Amino acid sequence: MIVDTILQTKGTTVYTLRDSDTLADAVAMLNTHNIGAVVIVGAGETVKGILSERDIVRQLGKNPATALAQSIGACMTRSVVTCDRSTAIAEVMERMTHRRVRHMPVVDADRLIGIVSIGDVVKLKIEEVEHEAEVLREYIAS
Amino acid sequence: MIVDTILQTKGTTVYTLRDSDTLADAVAMLNTHNIGAVVIVGAGETVKGILSERDIVRQLGKNPATALAQSIGACMTRSVVTCDRSTAIAEVMERMTHRRVRHMPVVDADRLIGIVSIGDVVKLKIEEVEHEAEVLREYIAS
Repeated sequence: MIVDTILQTKGTTVYTLRDSDTLADAVAMLNTHNIGAVVIVGAGETVKGILSERDIVRQLGKNPATALAQSIGACMTRSVVTCDRSTAIAEVMERMTHRRVRHMPVVDADRLIGIVSIGDVVKLKIEEVEHEAEVLREYIAS
Repeated sequence: MIVDTILQTKGTTVYTLRDSDTLADAVAMLNTHNIGAVVIVGAGETVKGILSERDIVRQLGKNPATALAQSIGACMTRSVVTCDRSTAIAEVMERMTHRRVRHMPVVDADRLIGIVSIGDVVKLKIEEVEHEAEVLREYIAS
C-alpha cells in the first residue's frame, strides 16, 4: 500500500493559500471545506508551509485580539513533513507519529500534488482488513 | 488489541472542563498541554460533551469578535462517540472513521476514565508491526 492508493480514491484536490493571506482567510477555508489544514504554496505550486487548526489555536492563545488579522507567513509551520506518490503507507504512519503531524502534503519534485491525512490512513487500514476478511470468506466458501 | 492496551502506556489523564467555562479557557488548556480536545464533564465525571480544535475554529468563523468569550456549553459537541476499556482497537478505528472524530473518551459506566486519540491508535499499529517483525527476526535467527 502506497500513498497513490489513497490519492486514487480521495483525489488530488488540496486547498491552498499564500503566505500573504491572513489567518481569517485560513479559518474561512477550513470551515468551508471541513478540513484540518491548508497548504501554503509559492510560485509553481511549491510547498512553503502548512497551517493547521492547531496552529490557529496556538495563535489565539498568544494574541486573541489580533490573531486573525495576522499573515499566515508569520505563523505557519515551515518545516513541512512531506511524502511522495510512492511512499509506503507504513512509512507515512511512522512519519506522522514521530513528527506528530496529522496532515502530509504529497509532492512530486517539490510541486504539490495531493495531501494525505491521518484519517485517510486509518480509513485505508480498515479497508485493507475488510478486504482480507472478504478474501478469506470467499476462500472458505469455495 | 483493546483500548486498555493504549491506556496502560499513555495513562488515564484526561484534561476536562465544565460547560460553564469559556472557549478562552479551552484554548488555554489545549495550548498548555499540546492536545487537540478537552472533555466536558458534569457531576461524578460523567461525559457531557467534547470540544476540539475544530469546534473552536468553527466558532471563530461564525463570530470572530466574541467566540472566545462564549461558554463551552453553547458550542461543544454533545453527541460524544465513546468506547470502553475493552473495546477492540479495530472497532475504535471504525468508529473514528465513520463518525469522523479524532478523539474518543473512554468511559466505565458513564464515568470518564481516559481518552484515546487517532494518533494513539496509529502509534499502536506501528508498534504492533514492529513487534511482529522483531518476533520474525528472532525466529529466523534461532
